Amino acid sequence: MASELEHPVDVAQYLFTRLYQLGIRTVQGVPGDYNLVALDYLPKAGLKWVGNCNELNAGYSADAYARVKGISAMVTTFGVGELSALNAIAGAYSEHVPLVHIVGQPSTASQRDGMLLHHTLGNGDYYVFADISAKLSICNVRITDPHRAPSLIDHALRQCWVESRPVYIALPTDMVQQKIDGKKLAQPIDLDPPPNDPAKEEYVVDVVLRYLQAAKNPVILVDAGAARHDALDVVHELIQKSGLPTFVAPMGRGAVDETLPNFGGVYAGNGSNEGVTDRVESADLILSIGPLKSDFNTTGFSYRTSKLNTINFDTDHVEVRYSLYTNIRMRGVLEKVIQRMGTWNVHPERILTTRVSPQLHGIHTDSSEITHSWLWPTVGSWLQEGDIVITETGTANFGIWETRFPKGVTAISQVLWGSIGYSVGACLGATLAAREVGNRRVILFVGDGSFQMTAQEVSTMIRQGLNPIIFVICNDGYTIERYIHGWDDEYNDIQTWHHGSLVQAFGASSQSRYKTYQAKTKAELHSLFTSPEFSGSSVFQLVEIFMPRDDAPIALKLTAEAAASRNAAA
Amino acid sequence: MASELEHPVDVAQYLFTRLYQLGIRTVQGVPGDYNLVALDYLPKAGLKWVGNCNELNAGYSADAYARVKGISAMVTTFGVGELSALNAIAGAYSEHVPLVHIVGQPSTASQRDGMLLHHTLGNGDYYVFADISAKLSICNVRITDPHRAPSLIDHALRQCWVESRPVYIALPTDMVQQKIDGKKLAQPIDLDPPPNDPAKEEYVVDVVLRYLQAAKNPVILVDAGAARHDALDVVHELIQKSGLPTFVAPMGRGAVDETLPNFGGVYAGNGSNEGVTDRVESADLILSIGPLKSDFNTTGFSYRTSKLNTINFDTDHVEVRYSLYTNIRMRGVLEKVIQRMGTWNVHPERILTTRVSPQLHGIHTDSSEITHSWLWPTVGSWLQEGDIVITETGTANFGIWETRFPKGVTAISQVLWGSIGYSVGACLGATLAAREVGNRRVILFVGDGSFQMTAQEVSTMIRQGLNPIIFVICNDGYTIERYIHGWDDEYNDIQTWHHGSLVQAFGASSQSRYKTYQAKTKAELHSLFTSPEFSGSSVFQLVEIFMPRDDAPIALKLTAEAAASRNAAA
Repeated sequence: MASELEHPVDVAQYLFTRLYQLGIRTVQGVPGDYNLVALDYLPKAGLKWVGNCNELNAGYSADAYARVKGISAMVTTFGVGELSALNAIAGAYSEHVPLVHIVGQPSTASQRDGMLLHHTLGNGDYYVFADISAKLSICNVRITDPHRAPSLIDHALRQCWVESRPVYIALPTDMVQQKIDGKKLAQPIDLDPPPNDPAKEEYVVDVVLRYLQAAKNPVILVDAGAARHDALDVVHELIQKSGLPTFVAPMGRGAVDETLPNFGGVYAGNGSNEGVTDRVESADLILSIGPLKSDFNTTGFSYRTSKLNTINFDTDHVEVRYSLYTNIRMRGVLEKVIQRMGTWNVHPERILTTRVSPQLHGIHTDSSEITHSWLWPTVGSWLQEGDIVITETGTANFGIWETRFPKGVTAISQVLWGSIGYSVGACLGATLAAREVGNRRVILFVGDGSFQMTAQEVSTMIRQGLNPIIFVICNDGYTIERYIHGWDDEYNDIQTWHHGSLVQAFGASSQSRYKTYQAKTKAELHSLFTSPEFSGSSVFQLVEIFMPRDDAPIALKLTAEAAASRNAAA
Repeated sequence: MASELEHPVDVAQYLFTRLYQLGIRTVQGVPGDYNLVALDYLPKAGLKWVGNCNELNAGYSADAYARVKGISAMVTTFGVGELSALNAIAGAYSEHVPLVHIVGQPSTASQRDGMLLHHTLGNGDYYVFADISAKLSICNVRITDPHRAPSLIDHALRQCWVESRPVYIALPTDMVQQKIDGKKLAQPIDLDPPPNDPAKEEYVVDVVLRYLQAAKNPVILVDAGAARHDALDVVHELIQKSGLPTFVAPMGRGAVDETLPNFGGVYAGNGSNEGVTDRVESADLILSIGPLKSDFNTTGFSYRTSKLNTINFDTDHVEVRYSLYTNIRMRGVLEKVIQRMGTWNVHPERILTTRVSPQLHGIHTDSSEITHSWLWPTVGSWLQEGDIVITETGTANFGIWETRFPKGVTAISQVLWGSIGYSVGACLGATLAAREVGNRRVILFVGDGSFQMTAQEVSTMIRQGLNPIIFVICNDGYTIERYIHGWDDEYNDIQTWHHGSLVQAFGASSQSRYKTYQAKTKAELHSLFTSPEFSGSSVFQLVEIFMPRDDAPIALKLTAEAAASRNAAA
């Protein structure tokens, strides 16, 4: 059979070549006997394997890799491996991250015979895990016939890209080396989204322009849906060409050039940057790009905007006031709106609220203690163009609202899914991706409680010779939860770790690969921030920032209060 | 409404009181805003909270706690928390471990309104995670009406106990403090299994006795199904009263008193203890108790026994040769068989194969290097009555076959589910349980690769002042996988850790709480094993055992070989 094929390739070779064509260069995961033979094909396709300490960390890492590079892939093994990754996959689904999850399965013969193999439930059910993943994937395929493999693989990868969500590909051990025709590989997978109906698009553009031209005081509000690969450039163009006052929701961070004169700050209802709330809520038209009004993105649903003043643009629909236009992608609509809308020459005075100061915040304050109100504007002044900034769910995710980003910063966080521990795995994947795109700095802010969930992935960073800068906020436990419930309760405490020893433990073989620091005062942190050696280091660095247990960003306090009262309401 | 109740209690109080009545004293998990208020009720019900570093570790820990105490409970939060625990829940399902998984959900009002809350997929689907867990639980209930809560809770807990498998209880935030009638609490939950049909039971007993009395050379083979709470005592009685030659499958370890004169060793097909294979396979009748013939329990399906010579006793059925008797629990059948079978006075010579030596294996061997063939019999000589021995999937799970247990040893491992990293979490739960039942020693053997998956739970052990002895087998990666595929491949390597620094990092606040050791030679390990201070320490201890990368127990080599060829077969 193989001899009849024009361009014979093995199934695994086909799959991995497709991943390479999509721009993937690193594949992560954990080896297991049902995926080992497949892993041999990675180098043949030009892909580097990075083994993680566990699958949840691998999933978080792959998620962040995708946020930087546009798509990512990970490999786990049947049952035990894939289930361990599931929280990360759900996070990618929730937050619209394109992640290809490849699962090595027992051979089709073993499955057909219902063999009592390890990693099964002992009941011969070989579908149960794939069925579970189907609920958290946009597409779920199982390679059981080599000749259908190319079309199934191409379909899954296209769905992953176009829908920007996880897909699941099950690869039984005996399929890996089956010969198939590789001639489709000469053509890249079609990644274009379905085109808009031209007449409908024209109609929607007209409606949008009519409201826009009638508006006296319109603003742009950039949110989650703008941060994915298919919208980023058109949103940038809209902001720059229109000159309209522009604000960003927490989940839209990184999709806006915050150094533009028409950028006004972070809007999140009650937790907004100072002065921003009035400016956004008094607008007579909000061009809302990819809105996602979740509790943590809106300081507990505290928006005071009206649908009558809002046009929502989303990946596959547009909503003008109460009129919903489905099956119309914002991209095409926005492109035409940009062409035809003209320019708003808004005086900066009309935009600027109380801008976060661009100077490095000094240490001339009353107390030497590092507080959130001092930390975050200071961080903003220290950040550099092109940095990738990761913040963990907790104080960091709210504190970062008070930071103005330099140009080209990518922000990574899980404001909707909010799984604590995410950011440590994400730090690995972002740094792997950063190395591929030209050594952008990766900076992580994580609390000590969240850090414990996934801490071992620091070992992989050191093993791979990566140089992220990790700030661990040491404040004795789950501060975000204390603000919701249980201020002094033991369940919000954690074991105190010595993070310096931890890094030493992980980097045992080579002490020149890492540096660790402690900052207990503003002066200590200030001196790190002003050290070129620290800011430009080529080795792994971890800084323990000691902060008061009961300090938190104001936006966190407001959000926690809203969450507590919603939890109690019947 | 509340005032009309005779014995008003809050829903959470009801649930936790029931857990206490079942013998649970410690509840584990990770706090999250959807479960915080519920956690306040634990101390009121006499339960201790032990917070874990992450949910997967919590699940593994709860699994082992149940294996020691009969049942366990854990609490996670909606979405992120419950999904992280899922691999552990699946393991408990696969291996028949009764584990109550309580999940704090958003309020019923938030769910009804489809609120866009954190920890959701952003699509208003509040059922998806419970639906996923339903595939891995024997019972799945959601408390949405306080008045139905007592019966739902009682039903779920009964199912958990009787079926010996995980159950899932969803507890929305607004249900926690609802007042219900607590009068049912005066009656304990009925935990009796459904009784056998007396006529059917008599019939089956007769059939069994007929074959047994005709047999010239019968043996008992104890396997997985014997190790759960409802069978343990009757199996002990069968072995002692009958005097029949008795062998144990790897998954049955701990269900047999291995110091009895009629105990012959571990049977697992080709990987059996020396001499055992012939003895078992030449029997003309095998009384097989709770058989589970999975690949890793049978050295790759290498049994050479015949159904014509076998009677299988299982929780809810009995199979005599090819005749299947369903809905008949082995317990009742075995009780009557024991009463009527009489005694076999088998001469020890007829039983004993090459018994593992009861003396501590000396160091007078050719090489100083610690090898598996030396390690495991030596471990067996060092173990004490009542020890709890945990082995990780990998070299330890196969090496332990060469260890003869003292009386009353409990063995914990995941031979069927085989999730690496399990044993570290399990070590925590077993030690928490051991403390409750009178300070039994807990001893863990785990490979360096598996250890990295879940290492942070060592921090919880130190935080709780526990004193397990952890042996980390340092052999540079995933040895079990090297034997399956990829002998020198990078994907089977790991980052080298310095485990001493790691323990220091986790125990930062108090160095008197732990000790660490390194053993690179037989002499070094021998001197630890002969030190009363080491063997009876009240603090946490971790020993790095350095072993050659390419050494493995023979049973592992055989099993890996079988797995590799099965993976390749189409």
